Amino acid sequence: MKVLSGGISNVQGFLSLGKNIGIKPEAYDFAVLCADKPCAAAGVYTQNAIKGAPLIVTMDHLTDNIAQAIVINSGNSNVATGSRGLENARKTTEIVAHELGINQDDVLVASTGVIGVQLPFEKIENGAKGIKDELNQVSNFAEAIMTTDTFKKEICVKLDGFKIAGAAKGSGMIEPNMATMLAFIVTDADITPDQLQSSLKSSVDKTFNMTSVDTDTSTSDMVIVMADGQVKNVDFASFGQALDFVCLELTKMIARDGEGATKLIICEVAGAETEIDAKKIAKSVINSPLVKTAVYGNDPNWGRLMMAIGKSGAGNISERKIAILINGQAVVAGGQAAPTYNNQLLVGLLKENKQIAIKIDLGLGGQTATAYGCDMSEGYIKINAEYTT
Amino acid sequence: MKVLSGGISNVQGFLSLGKNIGIKPEAYDFAVLCADKPCAAAGVYTQNAIKGAPLIVTMDHLTDNIAQAIVINSGNSNVATGSRGLENARKTTEIVAHELGINQDDVLVASTGVIGVQLPFEKIENGAKGIKDELNQVSNFAEAIMTTDTFKKEICVKLDGFKIAGAAKGSGMIEPNMATMLAFIVTDADITPDQLQSSLKSSVDKTFNMTSVDTDTSTSDMVIVMADGQVKNVDFASFGQALDFVCLELTKMIARDGEGATKLIICEVAGAETEIDAKKIAKSVINSPLVKTAVYGNDPNWGRLMMAIGKSGAGNISERKIAILINGQAVVAGGQAAPTYNNQLLVGLLKENKQIAIKIDLGLGGQTATAYGCDMSEGYIKINAEYTT
Repeated sequence: MKVLSGGISNVQGFLSLGKNIGIKPEAYDFAVLCADKPCAAAGVYTQNAIKGAPLIVTMDHLTDNIAQAIVINSGNSNVATGSRGLENARKTTEIVAHELGINQDDVLVASTGVIGVQLPFEKIENGAKGIKDELNQVSNFAEAIMTTDTFKKEICVKLDGFKIAGAAKGSGMIEPNMATMLAFIVTDADITPDQLQSSLKSSVDKTFNMTSVDTDTSTSDMVIVMADGQVKNVDFASFGQALDFVCLELTKMIARDGEGATKLIICEVAGAETEIDAKKIAKSVINSPLVKTAVYGNDPNWGRLMMAIGKSGAGNISERKIAILINGQAVVAGGQAAPTYNNQLLVGLLKENKQIAIKIDLGLGGQTATAYGCDMSEGYIKINAEYTT
Repeated sequence: MKVLSGGISNVQGFLSLGKNIGIKPEAYDFAVLCADKPCAAAGVYTQNAIKGAPLIVTMDHLTDNIAQAIVINSGNSNVATGSRGLENARKTTEIVAHELGINQDDVLVASTGVIGVQLPFEKIENGAKGIKDELNQVSNFAEAIMTTDTFKKEICVKLDGFKIAGAAKGSGMIEPNMATMLAFIVTDADITPDQLQSSLKSSVDKTFNMTSVDTDTSTSDMVIVMADGQVKNVDFASFGQALDFVCLELTKMIARDGEGATKLIICEVAGAETEIDAKKIAKSVINSPLVKTAVYGNDPNWGRLMMAIGKSGAGNISERKIAILINGQAVVAGGQAAPTYNNQLLVGLLKENKQIAIKIDLGLGGQTATAYGCDMSEGYIKINAEYTT
């Protein structure tokens, strides 16, 4: 598998655009992705019981597993906006379909930004005019879907003659069960809608659904994948492998760019009796504010890892069997400080590394799981104490 | 019911002390509470799967529902310290029992502070010498159990001739399911051990178990109540009412004094189909980092309340039926901005009040729940990024 530089621009057959239409003062706030023809498509969505209007429309338009275009705005999530919000999301797909000359049912819609404010629909309407001529192979699509993100998130891989490329956004309100976390993935592989949906579900469960910035699950999360079928006879296992990789790389970019984050935290749990236990513990560790602040402060306070393991709700934990390594350094053995534990060495490791790998062995079984998160700094507070004011 | 000033010192029959024995450089770090005679006693403990050595010893000593004394140290939690830690906790009760001239089985032990470091046992041993003569009616007990707390937490009420008084500590690692949250409650009421245990469980479920500072459940939480039986013929309902009040006041003190907190948040959920749903939503709101940072920043970002309701995992939520009031001001009606919603008014309310009351009506049924939390500021990050270094 080869990683190509850039993102969706590498995949022929998909055009896109990113621009400002006035929802935000100056930054890009409007993006469109359009395939040459209707594609096999699959999506996964937030598990939040309150779902944004765009999700409801997108889920409706994807019931036939076919899509050709996606329109995304940032600066306003169109959530908690009642029937007017739903109507605005529907009309957005109508306008875009009209401009692109395609079926309205093949247009998906996503929005990200403040909750509870009506979409400035006239800006969408004006911004959509003439988009067919603005679509191009190398666009600002990945920038235009950003909110508090500090860098654009895109990846492209090539394997067995086919390509998969994705762009994502997400920085706060991130514990996807599916802030808003949006990811759009395209491929030229010929793959059936059923295969696409099962591959996507499998990849997302291991990647996006195993990341958390702040435990807050957005009302607007979605991951969409579109396959236009240019490259025939693709091996399904290879496709899954490449999709896993794309989702994982985008996941790590999101975790690393968590609001206010200075470090990526990867927590790998092994030796669990069940995969569910392994997942609960990995998630509990990356979600613990006390673990996150300790990593931020280079504080070798490994007791907080024990606390987070214990509070996880995992079915079977045996304190005296727990071993923990941090960036390869033995920290805990037999549930207490490892014999070779060295406080100063651990402080040094924490200070020197922007990626903190916490490996926990429960010593009980053969199941594993990995979760992705970030540290927590004053920056997170600052960003979120002043978000709408 | 009358609230008396002060705490456990109001209840005759219980003596205490608080002093420094060198675990911390200067602050009080050692406390003892001792009754004139063996008392009916009940306890509730952390649900964290990893439990501190002192909890294990205390649970063991309370199997007969009788206790006479409690010894507490701060500065070291004696958790994740293996068999040596357990032995140190046992020896602590042995030494204290010997000094006080009472049964070792009637001495309970609690510790709070850093996890994973062996207890400096010789300091406990030296500190315990002569404690019988140091016990008095007006002591520094409530101060000596503090860690990052900024004020001492105590309360005493009198009702129908009996008194209940309690002292608690807790500021971070607080989502008791039972950081460390410790509370010690004494009463002169004559109440059976079974009644005491059922009253305590009922009160704790409504109060301490409905508070959260940071979602992190300590390995060392415990609430102990001791009744020495001086006041006979106490009405059980009155006793429950007074115990509820004492637990609630201590809960609010803990929430208000959350690490770095500037405001107390009380989230009252009504109109739920089940009490479990109401509890899940109330907890989800007070635990949301995005709600907490918005309250801190006086940001009228009510969309985050909708997000937190939706992510709660409650079984039944109907977006269009949700109504929300903040400090009496209508914010959400029918799942979207209330007709009378006024952004500037809400900013003003948030700025002026140190207690933020969020009332959520789900419009579905008659069940209610209330949770207690606090905002999240840079102070939380600062305290916890530098805890052990």
